[in-house]
Amino acid sequence: MATTRPDVDPPDSPCSVGWTVPQTIRLATREDPFPLEVGGSIGPVDVEYETYGELNKARDNVILVTHALSGDAHVAGWDKTAEATGRLWRARKPGWWDTMVGPGKPLDTGRYFVVCANFLGSCYGTTGPSSPNPSTGKPYGLSFPVVTVEDWVRQQARLLDALGVARIRAVIGGSLGGQQAIEWALAYPERLDKCIVLAASPRLSTQGLAFNAVGRQTIMSDPNFNGGCYYDGPAPADGLAAARMLAHITYLSEPGMHDKFGRRLQDREQPAFSFGIEFAVESYLDHQGKAFVERFDANSYLYITRAMDYYDAAAQWGGGDLVEACRRVQSDVMVVSFSSDWLYPPAHCREFATALCQLGKPVTYVDVPSRYGHDAFLVEYDVVGSLVRSFVNNERRSS
Amino acid sequence: MATTRPDVDPPDSPCSVGWTVPQTIRLATREDPFPLEVGGSIGPVDVEYETYGELNKARDNVILVTHALSGDAHVAGWDKTAEATGRLWRARKPGWWDTMVGPGKPLDTGRYFVVCANFLGSCYGTTGPSSPNPSTGKPYGLSFPVVTVEDWVRQQARLLDALGVARIRAVIGGSLGGQQAIEWALAYPERLDKCIVLAASPRLSTQGLAFNAVGRQTIMSDPNFNGGCYYDGPAPADGLAAARMLAHITYLSEPGMHDKFGRRLQDREQPAFSFGIEFAVESYLDHQGKAFVERFDANSYLYITRAMDYYDAAAQWGGGDLVEACRRVQSDVMVVSFSSDWLYPPAHCREFATALCQLGKPVTYVDVPSRYGHDAFLVEYDVVGSLVRSFVNNERRSS
Repeated sequence: MATTRPDVDPPDSPCSVGWTVPQTIRLATREDPFPLEVGGSIGPVDVEYETYGELNKARDNVILVTHALSGDAHVAGWDKTAEATGRLWRARKPGWWDTMVGPGKPLDTGRYFVVCANFLGSCYGTTGPSSPNPSTGKPYGLSFPVVTVEDWVRQQARLLDALGVARIRAVIGGSLGGQQAIEWALAYPERLDKCIVLAASPRLSTQGLAFNAVGRQTIMSDPNFNGGCYYDGPAPADGLAAARMLAHITYLSEPGMHDKFGRRLQDREQPAFSFGIEFAVESYLDHQGKAFVERFDANSYLYITRAMDYYDAAAQWGGGDLVEACRRVQSDVMVVSFSSDWLYPPAHCREFATALCQLGKPVTYVDVPSRYGHDAFLVEYDVVGSLVRSFVNNERRSS
Repeated sequence: MATTRPDVDPPDSPCSVGWTVPQTIRLATREDPFPLEVGGSIGPVDVEYETYGELNKARDNVILVTHALSGDAHVAGWDKTAEATGRLWRARKPGWWDTMVGPGKPLDTGRYFVVCANFLGSCYGTTGPSSPNPSTGKPYGLSFPVVTVEDWVRQQARLLDALGVARIRAVIGGSLGGQQAIEWALAYPERLDKCIVLAASPRLSTQGLAFNAVGRQTIMSDPNFNGGCYYDGPAPADGLAAARMLAHITYLSEPGMHDKFGRRLQDREQPAFSFGIEFAVESYLDHQGKAFVERFDANSYLYITRAMDYYDAAAQWGGGDLVEACRRVQSDVMVVSFSSDWLYPPAHCREFATALCQLGKPVTYVDVPSRYGHDAFLVEYDVVGSLVRSFVNNERRSS
């Protein structure tokens, strides 16, 4: 299914949004800082974002894409600034959801104005722990404040304000992006028609909390971590790589890993009997870890996984009761889970849909059979694309 | 189920094997070393073992217990030497399977002579990477040879030889211990009546390989690791703790973790919004990691997880075909899996039973419903105990 079309469109393809140039906007200043969910505030806040397609006159064709842990604002097309900004990985492949966004694609840029902003605390152009702390002139490191999913959604709402957009056609995201989509439906019910939640539940499982804890542990015990003050020296690359390796296991499924790697040895017939790379799956994880440290900041990883931990829609809006929280929802909602996803398991994803159902609110729930685990939300683009296309284009049912 | 009886018998309880004294035997010398599966040999080899009950005159009442990754020969009772040998954790609790071994218990020491030996490469009295290399007088570290499940089983067979035991009533083990039980049935089919395999499959899954790789990565990138030469200085405690934290997640199940910890905060009502311990599950993992480094050697962790990776019964005995391998089996076999075990999932455990079935060999397979994940083989002692008791005591069916 996932292999029926190439997932890379060259810039001059009629399916591609072509070359893109990330933009930056100052959403808060030091004097008028951005208030934070957990108390306090931060300023300045600069936000990197990208847009695709054209905002129509009625300003009612906006689709907001919310990105996941290691994602960024560069959703589709080819970043024209990749080399100039030293973000060389962007010169090698198009945006992370290029399969979904473009002319004629499920989020059709011939029709919709698609917006995505890098969230606070990340390392892709929006203010984060690697940004200069205006009080010291040095990178924040761990003096950066704790940020939350709620902050990100408020940040996105501010960006839409700045773009003159009062109401959006849809918000859509997968994984941690899906949790932002849930938060959008709860925090700004009057600002959106449709909410699409892929591979995400209203709160992370206990097992998910546990994996995040181990990932942070490997980073914080890296000798280069130095309490988060490593920007003048070597980064805690080993710790971040280990965290990423671990996370990658949770993005796949055991059947999927079996299909892809089995117990195959890497580049040899007989085992070498060593602690180096023996099995193909070890080589894969090693590669994933090393590639990640080239493009991600360890402190950002800490902050973002913590935001993932803390998010709890029921606690935030319903005093612990998800049905109570869902009374707020005014949009049509579609929840899509993936059968072999064990990071945000179908049963957990379904909770949001079930709560809406109990209230008689319009909700579509689909569990997509897949062996790709959590990654399926990106990999199963035929099924996801067709679900998303109909849901976004259909008439609104909620009122 | 698992909470219906205390799992600790004091030394003077009629159910306890009482005080025990670990014994050591030299199974190979430098001059006449122990040959290894992957080539080469090692000597001297000293093996720590314990026995419980009495060997009968016919020498036909022996049950061999095979231990798992972090286990040891101290299966039951209270180690009288705990303080003298500095293994203080043994002064705080009885052997790791005290629920199973003792007078009147499922492995009834009133009837059977129970033997368990610490395996080669471990750090509990048997020769391992922390033992002195006779060529240098210093600890082996990574100059210790790669050891395998096959080596451990051969080592156990030699110990039985030394004890004058030609044939055993049963071998029993869980997890990596279960893989040794499988290997016993294949390598020494003529030496055992019964084989009991708990929570183990004939080979580790791809996902299991992946988790082991990450665990080793955290150890080997610890700044104190120093290529395995750390015995004169601080141990790679952070890396080993992270590896253990990760492994612990794989020993539980998501429903089990949810039951036990949920998203409960540790010792507070409101989150502290920090990277310290916030959630109860984080506190649990932190404790598990710290406790482990007090009692385990990081190099041993590397060697033992590698042995776990390499073991593949079908490759070893059937040219890749498990049914072919199983033609060798002459014992009655019982395989017990646990419904929420995802380290050795039921479907994988069942493969051994299915292969034996296809050959018309006597095999009992039970999947125990449990929310305790892989740990269930230790925790569900009522069910496991009753299965084991009948299986061991019943007349032999195979011929």
